Amino acid sequence: MHPLNKNKIINDPVYGFLTVPSALVHDVIQHPYFQRLRRIRQLGLSEVVYPGATHTRFHHALGALNLMVRAIETLRSKGVDITDQEAEAAWLGILLHDVGHGPYSHTLEHTLIEGVSHEYISTLIMHRLNKEFGGKLELAIRIFKGDYPQKPFLTQLISGQLDMDRLDYLQRDSFYTGVSEGVVGGDRLINMLNVKDGNLVVEEKGIYSVEKFIVARRLMYWQVYLHKTAIAADELLIAILQRARHVATNMASLGSYHPLIHFLGKTISAEKFDEESLDLFVLLDDHDIMTAVKAWQFHEDKVLSTLSQAMLNRNLPKIVIQDKPISAELGSECLRKTRHRFPDMQDNEAGFFVRTGLLENLAYKPQKGGIHILRKDGTVCDAAEASDNHNLHSLSEAVTKHFITYWP
Amino acid sequence: MHPLNKNKIINDPVYGFLTVPSALVHDVIQHPYFQRLRRIRQLGLSEVVYPGATHTRFHHALGALNLMVRAIETLRSKGVDITDQEAEAAWLGILLHDVGHGPYSHTLEHTLIEGVSHEYISTLIMHRLNKEFGGKLELAIRIFKGDYPQKPFLTQLISGQLDMDRLDYLQRDSFYTGVSEGVVGGDRLINMLNVKDGNLVVEEKGIYSVEKFIVARRLMYWQVYLHKTAIAADELLIAILQRARHVATNMASLGSYHPLIHFLGKTISAEKFDEESLDLFVLLDDHDIMTAVKAWQFHEDKVLSTLSQAMLNRNLPKIVIQDKPISAELGSECLRKTRHRFPDMQDNEAGFFVRTGLLENLAYKPQKGGIHILRKDGTVCDAAEASDNHNLHSLSEAVTKHFITYWP
Amino acid sequence: MHPLNKNKIINDPVYGFLTVPSALVHDVIQHPYFQRLRRIRQLGLSEVVYPGATHTRFHHALGALNLMVRAIETLRSKGVDITDQEAEAAWLGILLHDVGHGPYSHTLEHTLIEGVSHEYISTLIMHRLNKEFGGKLELAIRIFKGDYPQKPFLTQLISGQLDMDRLDYLQRDSFYTGVSEGVVGGDRLINMLNVKDGNLVVEEKGIYSVEKFIVARRLMYWQVYLHKTAIAADELLIAILQRARHVATNMASLGSYHPLIHFLGKTISAEKFDEESLDLFVLLDDHDIMTAVKAWQFHEDKVLSTLSQAMLNRNLPKIVIQDKPISAELGSECLRKTRHRFPDMQDNEAGFFVRTGLLENLAYKPQKGGIHILRKDGTVCDAAEASDNHNLHSLSEAVTKHFITYWP
Amino acid sequence: MHPLNKNKIINDPVYGFLTVPSALVHDVIQHPYFQRLRRIRQLGLSEVVYPGATHTRFHHALGALNLMVRAIETLRSKGVDITDQEAEAAWLGILLHDVGHGPYSHTLEHTLIEGVSHEYISTLIMHRLNKEFGGKLELAIRIFKGDYPQKPFLTQLISGQLDMDRLDYLQRDSFYTGVSEGVVGGDRLINMLNVKDGNLVVEEKGIYSVEKFIVARRLMYWQVYLHKTAIAADELLIAILQRARHVATNMASLGSYHPLIHFLGKTISAEKFDEESLDLFVLLDDHDIMTAVKAWQFHEDKVLSTLSQAMLNRNLPKIVIQDKPISAELGSECLRKTRHRFPDMQDNEAGFFVRTGLLENLAYKPQKGGIHILRKDGTVCDAAEASDNHNLHSLSEAVTKHFITYWP
Repeated sequence: MHPLNKNKIINDPVYGFLTVPSALVHDVIQHPYFQRLRRIRQLGLSEVVYPGATHTRFHHALGALNLMVRAIETLRSKGVDITDQEAEAAWLGILLHDVGHGPYSHTLEHTLIEGVSHEYISTLIMHRLNKEFGGKLELAIRIFKGDYPQKPFLTQLISGQLDMDRLDYLQRDSFYTGVSEGVVGGDRLINMLNVKDGNLVVEEKGIYSVEKFIVARRLMYWQVYLHKTAIAADELLIAILQRARHVATNMASLGSYHPLIHFLGKTISAEKFDEESLDLFVLLDDHDIMTAVKAWQFHEDKVLSTLSQAMLNRNLPKIVIQDKPISAELGSECLRKTRHRFPDMQDNEAGFFVRTGLLENLAYKPQKGGIHILRKDGTVCDAAEASDNHNLHSLSEAVTKHFITYWP
Repeated sequence: MHPLNKNKIINDPVYGFLTVPSALVHDVIQHPYFQRLRRIRQLGLSEVVYPGATHTRFHHALGALNLMVRAIETLRSKGVDITDQEAEAAWLGILLHDVGHGPYSHTLEHTLIEGVSHEYISTLIMHRLNKEFGGKLELAIRIFKGDYPQKPFLTQLISGQLDMDRLDYLQRDSFYTGVSEGVVGGDRLINMLNVKDGNLVVEEKGIYSVEKFIVARRLMYWQVYLHKTAIAADELLIAILQRARHVATNMASLGSYHPLIHFLGKTISAEKFDEESLDLFVLLDDHDIMTAVKAWQFHEDKVLSTLSQAMLNRNLPKIVIQDKPISAELGSECLRKTRHRFPDMQDNEAGFFVRTGLLENLAYKPQKGGIHILRKDGTVCDAAEASDNHNLHSLSEAVTKHFITYWP
Repeated sequence: MHPLNKNKIINDPVYGFLTVPSALVHDVIQHPYFQRLRRIRQLGLSEVVYPGATHTRFHHALGALNLMVRAIETLRSKGVDITDQEAEAAWLGILLHDVGHGPYSHTLEHTLIEGVSHEYISTLIMHRLNKEFGGKLELAIRIFKGDYPQKPFLTQLISGQLDMDRLDYLQRDSFYTGVSEGVVGGDRLINMLNVKDGNLVVEEKGIYSVEKFIVARRLMYWQVYLHKTAIAADELLIAILQRARHVATNMASLGSYHPLIHFLGKTISAEKFDEESLDLFVLLDDHDIMTAVKAWQFHEDKVLSTLSQAMLNRNLPKIVIQDKPISAELGSECLRKTRHRFPDMQDNEAGFFVRTGLLENLAYKPQKGGIHILRKDGTVCDAAEASDNHNLHSLSEAVTKHFITYWP
Repeated sequence: MHPLNKNKIINDPVYGFLTVPSALVHDVIQHPYFQRLRRIRQLGLSEVVYPGATHTRFHHALGALNLMVRAIETLRSKGVDITDQEAEAAWLGILLHDVGHGPYSHTLEHTLIEGVSHEYISTLIMHRLNKEFGGKLELAIRIFKGDYPQKPFLTQLISGQLDMDRLDYLQRDSFYTGVSEGVVGGDRLINMLNVKDGNLVVEEKGIYSVEKFIVARRLMYWQVYLHKTAIAADELLIAILQRARHVATNMASLGSYHPLIHFLGKTISAEKFDEESLDLFVLLDDHDIMTAVKAWQFHEDKVLSTLSQAMLNRNLPKIVIQDKPISAELGSECLRKTRHRFPDMQDNEAGFFVRTGLLENLAYKPQKGGIHILRKDGTVCDAAEASDNHNLHSLSEAVTKHFITYWP
């Protein structure tokens, strides 16, 4: 591991400072694949509800890196053996965990690149970087993929029920939205981390911080990630892209350059996601989507232009969210109102205006590894068992809701 | 004034909540001209230094509105007579004070629309809105323009040495950059406001808060607004746009839609800024600039593509900032190094790579209205006089620096 | 209601500013009975764990007043009818709700004034103040006591499952301890308050804030109010006061003045709490307790001096907390260790060194009024019913733990 | 240096966590001499103005220790050679720098122990601790006293124009009072520290943080440390203690135990400050002063009881602060008003009621070592020279004001 010859720090309103712990990490940050994340917002369209939530995936990745640096420091101070090479691999793994995200990921995953997860694309990009950097990311990739059985806790720090990713995004999203419900004691949680039999554990005295963390995650889901107005905006953008693909045999308005055109022309599945697709994918960012919507506001297709204008002027569909499925009656009623508003709407266009879907909130998944508590007697148990209250059990039950968007 | 039938509030990490005080204000916020500000970052390219500084002019305008609501409440509670109509006009005036900003304003003001100030465009837009809203913005425009001699303090709250604009942007920019030097006691300052003979004054016990405010402004200039790396990025973007105009007889790569094309084709002065220009101007936002740069990274003109790639990958020119003018020796040395890096560079292309300029920091301008202190004996004097120390005098002297950017 | 002729504000790190809304409120704050609260810490001995937790009941009472001012503003803005007289009464009620607290209340309630609740003493003091202020606190007393059937919500704002008392102390205690688990969105909760059929309700969109509030309360109990080290310190102080009463026929060391002497001489029950007792009670504050302990560190009684020295030097007993009752085995073991440490300890002195007790944490009590949610359809239900998850049900089950303190 | 076997951390609302870096440091913290600081407020009587300012010297000392730990980490990361023994000595030096403070220090220094500085008493206590800890504080004492010519920067970190003491108290006092004017970028300043020729320097890019630090210090002086109401309270307490000494031949009311009696009986100068004085001094804390005042509110001497009651009920004298000396006219006028209020006041008692004095605010003292800036070219200069504005020169000029307190 090559240390940076300077104490490289970056201002961060959430933690005060972000650190860049090694020269290799610095070089990876400088790479265009990573710099692209500056142009992708962390919370996509949430800004229509929370005007402060304009932070980027670039910022989040640096934040998660910062937490990883501290987590590894803490574990080492408790006697956990982590080599310099492993530490750097863990830093790189968390830094790049989201590098495969496209703009408005959740929207795109439902439209342009159905079935190709961002984790998969992250891995593709990491392999490319590994080549460019002469194999120096080998170990980072193994840890990222969960292929390092010697020390599974390194993978768990990147991807688990209490990983540095979640720990950063809860704090950062809470900070930028101003939703205090998401505040968690990140410092405290990291201080409580330890390793037992190769697995990440939280010391017993940290059980209440874990409880707080799980509750905060649940509340952030409802108040931010699944906020009804943000969902309505998401559905609108999905409809726009679906319509664009539907009508847009001629993409002249987007110009000769436009990575989006590649993805609009056809649905790309994981097996079709070839080198050319990746070349174009790494060009994509929020600007491409939004400039396309801006161009489409003048498109001759009435549906496309109407929806695009609505998006730009934050004229969003109304949304109903409820516990039970959307009944046929409610569906008809919503359709009727929407027709009243858009009298020219054709039957086969209704699906772009009236849309239904599911929301799921599952704050804690014990079956997906869970969060393990290290008792003072040295035994390990699941957090839900360790709690002196049954509320963690409740929080490991998924809550599902149904929604319909329409235009009254 | 029509009250909102609901207590309309918006989450804001800086103040907790933002208020929308009337139905008309609400409708103006909903208007596409104002919604456009969601797509323009407050600090333009500062994000290359401060990754958290992604907040928008939309957010700033709502923040300044919020402060205006509280300032008017405070003044009324001290017996200052402000009618409901005047209050609403002041709210609208501050809300719209920046509506004429284009994307990367400081860059554009040096390239595409030389000589047309954003205040001028704000006024044009306010007149259009006034028409749409049936004359209801009449008084707001008068106050904004300083044409309301009855109560000059209303104008001073919008535009002065201690206005709600500055009070919001110092707090907001400080919050989002994480630069604590800009923290000011906004609540406290507003609590100390009063009116004497129609002019805005600060009560004597607020003199130290005023001192803090002026120092904070000075420090934010050096640490954020004039940060050397941000200046280097600004100069790079200016060079890109100048080159684009120079070479770009064919803008096909930008597509058939593109409001930028209008402004790239010719320099637009204030007198040439006609209705069509305004129609196109209100379409412009950050996305148009950045998508153009993204297209140009593949442009056949080598200078344009080189500079565009540099911008996208945050590969910035080096910058020297100094008190004395850039000497011929330093200029030659910088040119020599740049030539070494870009051996193909032609003589007439040097101006796109090596650039010089001036920076000015003047924290407090007593001659531009100043900040007036209301002494306990009822007399009024300038803040610099009221201070028990000479440092405010020092802070009213401009500090000028010279810079050169180049590529080593 | 007499307005203050000045905009009286007090600095507060938690909310920015505290307001004093009327002249009568101002005068009550100035009264010696209320000023006494400056000398009583809000969290008593918690400072042994959280060195920042030195804030006072005076500060908390002003904070709760501030929230009451805002809650009443919010309710009025939603059309709830509250007369000026009622508003002032609610302000006074919350301001004085804790005025009957003695120093280290929880300790004293177990020793000196067994069976006399601080609410009872608060009422006695309010009646005295009412006399002094010519009957102007009449309505405040009725509301405080729950004797105002016209508008029960006024009482609920002072004392209920979601009152201004709890809302302030969770925020304030969280701020001063640095325990982020207690952070609640106070602004947001107040914004969601409303009144239905005379009762306080929270609007449906506030359900997640309510959930957060209840969880925060649970976590603050375990992490702060029932923190094991603070409990150990509490038990030590209880033992000191019990021993002092036991041995101290001669209180000369405390001097001729000392309100504590009155309470040490005899146990005072509610019926014996006469005017003289009240006269002496309002003289008592933290200083009296601590100076007594300081004097007793040199007392000839070995048990008293040993315990007093331990307290002053933060040499605290060890504590075991567990779900099941303390077994005879554990008790013997603890006694044996304690004897080993203090070989001179007599059998009848053991109770001062080895102590057992119960802790109870019940975050939410639906049966004590509960928190009512106002659905969009106008119906009202309990928060636990309104939640889409069963965790609020879990949180309404009491968790009881058992402890033993000893000296290893 | 013996590491702690546990990662010992203490919650702190200002920095998140405080660290206890070694076993010896831990043991010194546990010592009664240091635990005494829990019972001494950092800001004495400032609480009469800022109800939140109840934090203790104990908390401040731990905070300054925390900054020292980070400063030494930073310097080491920049290649400055600091041995483990030196690091621990610096930690101990800053931890104990204020251990010689008595309660309400500034008051006592004008009354009971005239002419004995708290630094002198700190040294006495450090010598005692050194004996108890078998000579392990030897180096800490040398560094504290400035007797370590090898590495003067270690002393400068404890006591200089930019030391860890000031850096902590500005941040902590600002946090607890809620006065945002005192906020400084502590993290940033520490990151900019370096050593040149054995002396502490700040790297050039930190010049604006230094400017902010000096301005913040100036403003905290006027807004907190020299706040007029706090000065009035200080003068009242001085008058009480002077009167107590004057009249109190019989201290029976204070009880047989009372360390204060020793200091009330006679004025103790540095040469008279013998071992017995020190034994009693280390017993003194805020409680002794306040309980004495509480006893004196019933004292037969009318002056003493009047003043004591006034203090307890926050009934403070009025104060006039002005640039020019108090004129004879103003003095007479104040005396006349005071006589009107207290008609029984004797001529020789006037000095207890009407009092004059001086306040001085000198934010930056270049002649006392100054703050040195390390330029990029390796040269070192004073901060006032390095600034591009003259305001730092202004801030190194003392501002003196005159006050008179009286009872209208």
